[in-house]
Amino acid sequence: MTKPVLTLFAALLASSASAQDLSKGTWIDLTHAFNSDSVYWPTANMFEQTEIFAGHTEGGYYYSSYDFASSEHGGTHLDAPVHFAEGGHSSDEIPIEQLIGPGFVIDVTRQSAEDVDYLVSAADIEAFEAEHGEIPQGAIVLLNTGRAGLYPDRETYMGTAARGQEAVADLHFPGLGVDGAELLVARGIGAVGLDTPSIDYGQSADFATHVALMTNNIAAFENVADMSALPATGSTIIAMPMKIEGGSGGPLRIIAHLP
Amino acid sequence: MTKPVLTLFAALLASSASAQDLSKGTWIDLTHAFNSDSVYWPTANMFEQTEIFAGHTEGGYYYSSYDFASSEHGGTHLDAPVHFAEGGHSSDEIPIEQLIGPGFVIDVTRQSAEDVDYLVSAADIEAFEAEHGEIPQGAIVLLNTGRAGLYPDRETYMGTAARGQEAVADLHFPGLGVDGAELLVARGIGAVGLDTPSIDYGQSADFATHVALMTNNIAAFENVADMSALPATGSTIIAMPMKIEGGSGGPLRIIAHLP
Repeated sequence: MTKPVLTLFAALLASSASAQDLSKGTWIDLTHAFNSDSVYWPTANMFEQTEIFAGHTEGGYYYSSYDFASSEHGGTHLDAPVHFAEGGHSSDEIPIEQLIGPGFVIDVTRQSAEDVDYLVSAADIEAFEAEHGEIPQGAIVLLNTGRAGLYPDRETYMGTAARGQEAVADLHFPGLGVDGAELLVARGIGAVGLDTPSIDYGQSADFATHVALMTNNIAAFENVADMSALPATGSTIIAMPMKIEGGSGGPLRIIAHLP
Repeated sequence: MTKPVLTLFAALLASSASAQDLSKGTWIDLTHAFNSDSVYWPTANMFEQTEIFAGHTEGGYYYSSYDFASSEHGGTHLDAPVHFAEGGHSSDEIPIEQLIGPGFVIDVTRQSAEDVDYLVSAADIEAFEAEHGEIPQGAIVLLNTGRAGLYPDRETYMGTAARGQEAVADLHFPGLGVDGAELLVARGIGAVGLDTPSIDYGQSADFATHVALMTNNIAAFENVADMSALPATGSTIIAMPMKIEGGSGGPLRIIAHLP
């Protein structure tokens, strides 16, 4: 073959490799199911399901139906930018392009095991990039603290099973530090998620990481399920929130595709 | 180039064309936002949003948060198989492979404009297949009745804005006929959706189409938004329901990708 033909050939191969063929490969569900044990902030109303009907009807067919109610913030869920940024995108306004993209999974299980109040830092992200290359614009960054397996045991997962305002001071779990958030903002990521109840660590009082992300219209995914099957790079993340008009967050169905 | 090289070249081109490169192309959101106007069955509890806080805090940061409540069945939503089939998949049990797949959009806008009680038939589906080829296993079939633009005006969209059991007899909108449902079951589709409040037409009393689909573990998507931008074939549909444990349905975020 001539050199131009070889070049075209190589370009086609590269294009084929980068495209995600969703009809092949593996899906991983990164979503905890909603039930009465779903983890909510100590001050937030928890998930409730009410049976309307479940059984055989007079018409001869089986029928089941339920109502449900909860805070927007609990279980595997979205924090929309307007949760901590006036005028930021609400749940229905986040562009789909920011909710679907290549997954970059930063493993901080060792650090989180040593320090329950661990803050993922800019240095952690730079160490990841030294190994895997710079995190690109539109990336979905997932922080794996290794704590998804503790869910939904609130005592071990978030430091306390108590409810109400007085329980907030006892919250302990890792989060993303402000310097880490600022670096991800600079990279132009689509969104960031983690396997703890909040993108700010449990001991945060000023929610500065939420503010740093959300004033830049970057959403967070919280209480993401077990990421241990995900590679550091090479997955595609699809994160679809319930489309609540004006919502500050809501239930999120987040899945990963591996080629 | 030699013939084997040309053949490989053609195969690479075909592979490149069939894989969905999600980083390019166009996204279409097929989801109505949830708000106090969202369309629910006359007997079902409608969507309610309660403000917990929205404004500037003593801590100096902006904060907003809401609670919400509703029936599982309203707005753009999933009917899980267990809604009409004992032992069928609940909202959290539907395999992801059945919720993501190639979109096949059957246009019945003309028929629906002529007859508000129109039933999409096996003959309609066979006419579609005569033009576009047989609907494959795993397809997501969408019926475009052209009525999404009437949403959320319940009087025109579903025949009545009245609430309560006595309003049910006044429901008028198109649906999928039982013979059409049986053909789609035979094809092994992943799921079927449409832009009306129910996969059975408004005047149904026995919900036989729900039963035909759901006893075969095929889910339905209802109150899907405007499909007019979708081609008959060539899109990829991603339909992510809220993962409610044991749920008979729930809010659905459904989007389409065009290459």
